[in-house]
Amino acid sequence: MPTIVVEVMPKPEILDPQGKAIANALPHLGLTGFTGVRQGKRFELTVEGEVTEEVLDSARKAAAEMLSNPVIEDVVSVAVAEDQQTA
Amino acid sequence: MPTIVVEVMPKPEILDPQGKAIANALPHLGLTGFTGVRQGKRFELTVEGEVTEEVLDSARKAAAEMLSNPVIEDVVSVAVAEDQQTA
Repeated sequence: MPTIVVEVMPKPEILDPQGKAIANALPHLGLTGFTGVRQGKRFELTVEGEVTEEVLDSARKAAAEMLSNPVIEDVVSVAVAEDQQTA
Repeated sequence: MPTIVVEVMPKPEILDPQGKAIANALPHLGLTGFTGVRQGKRFELTVEGEVTEEVLDSARKAAAEMLSNPVIEDVVSVAVAEDQQTA
């Protein structure tokens, strides 16, 4: 069944303590070269049947109204996952 | 600065109560046509300088050892975000 992937990230001006903690911990694993980490969310919506423009609109509405908090988060992308088999 | 995006999802056989709650709530928003929702994580690693194969290897190591729990999660992708300006 097709899957729509919704990606949500904290807005750039919002502090992200989880990302910060990861960024600080990476050097302890010997991993340098990264100046920052931001943690967001990724949703996979399984679609019943075909992905029509109407279904994509529903997914965009879900992303804006349920999957993200518009005060602190941006919806980075709403896209069909073509060949993914992770859902 | 270039950004490497790491995507992590719960393994298919692992229960995902957050995703389930979202899937159950979508019809209340008038959004039908979705049979399931899975919630995972999305990380943006900001790279200092150029993205070399070595930096990508570091990102893959971070994804496997710090950004995901291999018992319950799969690393779905580790990729360079070409034109993204969200970090």
